[in-house]
Amino acid sequence: MSHLFKRLSSTATVTIKSTPSKAHHHAPLPSSSFPAGYLLTGVHAGVKKKAGVLDLGIILSTSKLTSAAACFTRNAFKAAPVLVSDEILTKNGGRARAIVVNSGCANAVTGRQGMDDAWAMVRATDALLPPSAQENKNQHETLVMSTGVIGQNLPISKILPGITNTAPPTLAADFDAWERAAQAFMTTDTFPKLRARTFTLRGTQYRLAGMDKGAGMIHPDMGPASTTLHATLLGAILTDAPVSPRSLQNALTYAVERSFNSISVDGDMSTNDTVVVLANGAAAPPGTEEIDEAVDPEGYEVFKNELTAFAVDLAKLVVRDGEGATKFVTVTVKGAPSYKDAHSIASRISTSALVKTALYGEDANWGRILAATGSVPLSPIEKTTPTITPNKVSVSFIPGDGSQALPVLVAGEPENVDEVRAKQILEQEEFGVLVDLGMGTEEATYWTCDFSYEYVRINGDYRS
Amino acid sequence: MSHLFKRLSSTATVTIKSTPSKAHHHAPLPSSSFPAGYLLTGVHAGVKKKAGVLDLGIILSTSKLTSAAACFTRNAFKAAPVLVSDEILTKNGGRARAIVVNSGCANAVTGRQGMDDAWAMVRATDALLPPSAQENKNQHETLVMSTGVIGQNLPISKILPGITNTAPPTLAADFDAWERAAQAFMTTDTFPKLRARTFTLRGTQYRLAGMDKGAGMIHPDMGPASTTLHATLLGAILTDAPVSPRSLQNALTYAVERSFNSISVDGDMSTNDTVVVLANGAAAPPGTEEIDEAVDPEGYEVFKNELTAFAVDLAKLVVRDGEGATKFVTVTVKGAPSYKDAHSIASRISTSALVKTALYGEDANWGRILAATGSVPLSPIEKTTPTITPNKVSVSFIPGDGSQALPVLVAGEPENVDEVRAKQILEQEEFGVLVDLGMGTEEATYWTCDFSYEYVRINGDYRS
Repeated sequence: MSHLFKRLSSTATVTIKSTPSKAHHHAPLPSSSFPAGYLLTGVHAGVKKKAGVLDLGIILSTSKLTSAAACFTRNAFKAAPVLVSDEILTKNGGRARAIVVNSGCANAVTGRQGMDDAWAMVRATDALLPPSAQENKNQHETLVMSTGVIGQNLPISKILPGITNTAPPTLAADFDAWERAAQAFMTTDTFPKLRARTFTLRGTQYRLAGMDKGAGMIHPDMGPASTTLHATLLGAILTDAPVSPRSLQNALTYAVERSFNSISVDGDMSTNDTVVVLANGAAAPPGTEEIDEAVDPEGYEVFKNELTAFAVDLAKLVVRDGEGATKFVTVTVKGAPSYKDAHSIASRISTSALVKTALYGEDANWGRILAATGSVPLSPIEKTTPTITPNKVSVSFIPGDGSQALPVLVAGEPENVDEVRAKQILEQEEFGVLVDLGMGTEEATYWTCDFSYEYVRINGDYRS
Repeated sequence: MSHLFKRLSSTATVTIKSTPSKAHHHAPLPSSSFPAGYLLTGVHAGVKKKAGVLDLGIILSTSKLTSAAACFTRNAFKAAPVLVSDEILTKNGGRARAIVVNSGCANAVTGRQGMDDAWAMVRATDALLPPSAQENKNQHETLVMSTGVIGQNLPISKILPGITNTAPPTLAADFDAWERAAQAFMTTDTFPKLRARTFTLRGTQYRLAGMDKGAGMIHPDMGPASTTLHATLLGAILTDAPVSPRSLQNALTYAVERSFNSISVDGDMSTNDTVVVLANGAAAPPGTEEIDEAVDPEGYEVFKNELTAFAVDLAKLVVRDGEGATKFVTVTVKGAPSYKDAHSIASRISTSALVKTALYGEDANWGRILAATGSVPLSPIEKTTPTITPNKVSVSFIPGDGSQALPVLVAGEPENVDEVRAKQILEQEEFGVLVDLGMGTEEATYWTCDFSYEYVRINGDYRS
């Protein structure tokens, strides 16, 4: 018996097909779809080298009193724009009237210069606003976001003229303006992500519209000295509803947890992740109070749920955008002792490479789902820490077409699975995975995609 | 401007080369390398279909008083062999004289039958032992391990005759017996993992030898109804040193944390992960007391460190085994406020898909390392939770050949990196990444591999 194992060198030729984009790019929307009282633009300032590619976006609220809220990355390394925006929002007590965003450079790990540049962008955009209604007329009113390569300083000498000279004549409120702003956010995205939504509160119709950027999976960047990480998640949501600053922040935090924090992206949270919302009350009848949870809990609940549903729509677009992804999968964990636990487990299932591979393979592989589920320690409740009870756990696959669900594990026992039915469900482009822990009433939902055809093809299948 | 984006279908042909195994399979060792007082075998019982492929291993200690310790998976779903072994070890107060292992079927998620089968394997192996020295002669003395497909019952009617009839005549103490046992552990491994080590304590030479199984990255399994997860990690370490049960357990727990729990594998901890150690004192001069921390802290420290170094050697073999991996990378996090934090951060860096891709690409990409580092919340210390201070963090690449390290980030500022030097280091098959948090004195080391050539090739590079 030979004691020396060597794998023979071999070559195999594989033909790789690209899958067409699922074209979640929207059709043009009428201008009436959008919330009132906003002017937007997207221009080419020169951050990105290629001429004509939009890299600078500006959003202005024309209402003097505009509430603002934001959620920022929890990464210990926060980019300059994140630190600056956080400071402005805190000092203003949740008021701001403008957003400026550049793509192509993240202004992260850029030291003192980076901070100076972020403040310069704020001041230049402040100057575009009509005089403030606020008491302290020296307050800054702009929030700033950046996305792109890290460790490099902004080409601030191009950005500032972009804000001051290039952008203002192009500010508008029509569909084209909204889309140009959305395009200015893009880095690795394959389509601009823009959505609009309407809701009614006490007979008044309000609108939400917004854009985000981020791609579920990105090309690993192979060049030297490259410093790309996963594509930063940025979101900007605008509404013409009137909302108090603190309720706007509470609603956004709730919404972001269930949307942007519930999608699987390829990599860790970046140095730049930011979601901002502005509420300018432009559609409110005169004399309407700002919606505030303490004063009007029912109105607040309506707004919070609408904002959450809207944020979910935007966040799902990020999942749908990813090289080679062929599946859009909704992972739900229910019967959990806390929302946090349900969310942690859904996250683990959704980001597991082996689960994502099985999803691509249209394989009703509950083993990997189970291993991911059981890997997550539950949160302590008072002085004890609950543990999952294996014989209470059930797993099913939920068809995307509304037909009957397929249980694969019931109360800890494997089912004899009808393979034909499993194939039917998993061959669909969209389906769900449901894990019931049987130990509570809390639940969480996460959205994920499969691993690219190419990844799996090469890793797993030499047969064809 | 077209509002409808569709990626054109395209085909690309790529030639895939397999990389030869790094042949970490050992050369034959003289029988004197192995600890005294053990008999081993590996046979084909028929769990695996292919004739002659070893799937049943047995290890017996011929010393009447043998200490035993084990670390088991923390997954909430524990396989039957894990539950049974845990119970036996607890009831015996850390004594056992035998290990039985089968590969090809994990005996996980197998209900009552699975538990019965695991106990049957224990009883059949107990019967191979000479009468016990223990007070309770009805105590079980065998620990059981299984690895392979989950959700299917063991072919117990093949395993039991394997233990009772096939195995006993083949028990031996030579290299061939040790290697057959190591082969019986294998599932997705490409080589049997067996190592031996010597150490001296107060003039007496003791030996450690052992085997493990697991592969850093496995083929995603694409077949229907497949229930493979990541390859289970199993380890069996034997020594002829005399160690008390409680000190053996403490030493093993310490060693496992720094070895088997410090390697990057593709997937979550499985239902079956187990590492067992037996210490039979067979090489101790007559009258030697068992090494115990309370009585002999220095002797304990020597043993603990030797066991840890040995476990690290075994665990590294798992990292080296992985389809297409071309790099073996040591990730060290120092300057941390606690070992736990250093370990968590090293783990996050080591398991990040984007970091592993950059490693393959020989790209000194500190951005991804930073994002991974900053993603991990630190542990609370009393009533406060420390946070990483960005301007104290440094990152360097450590060449595998002992030459000078290359700093890429120093106290939060990016260096002007000498690209030629970066290329030199990252082109090596082995190198290190060092992250210094600058906020404490604790440190942890993790071992990882890059993502396969194939994965990166297809995801990132159509240029050639």
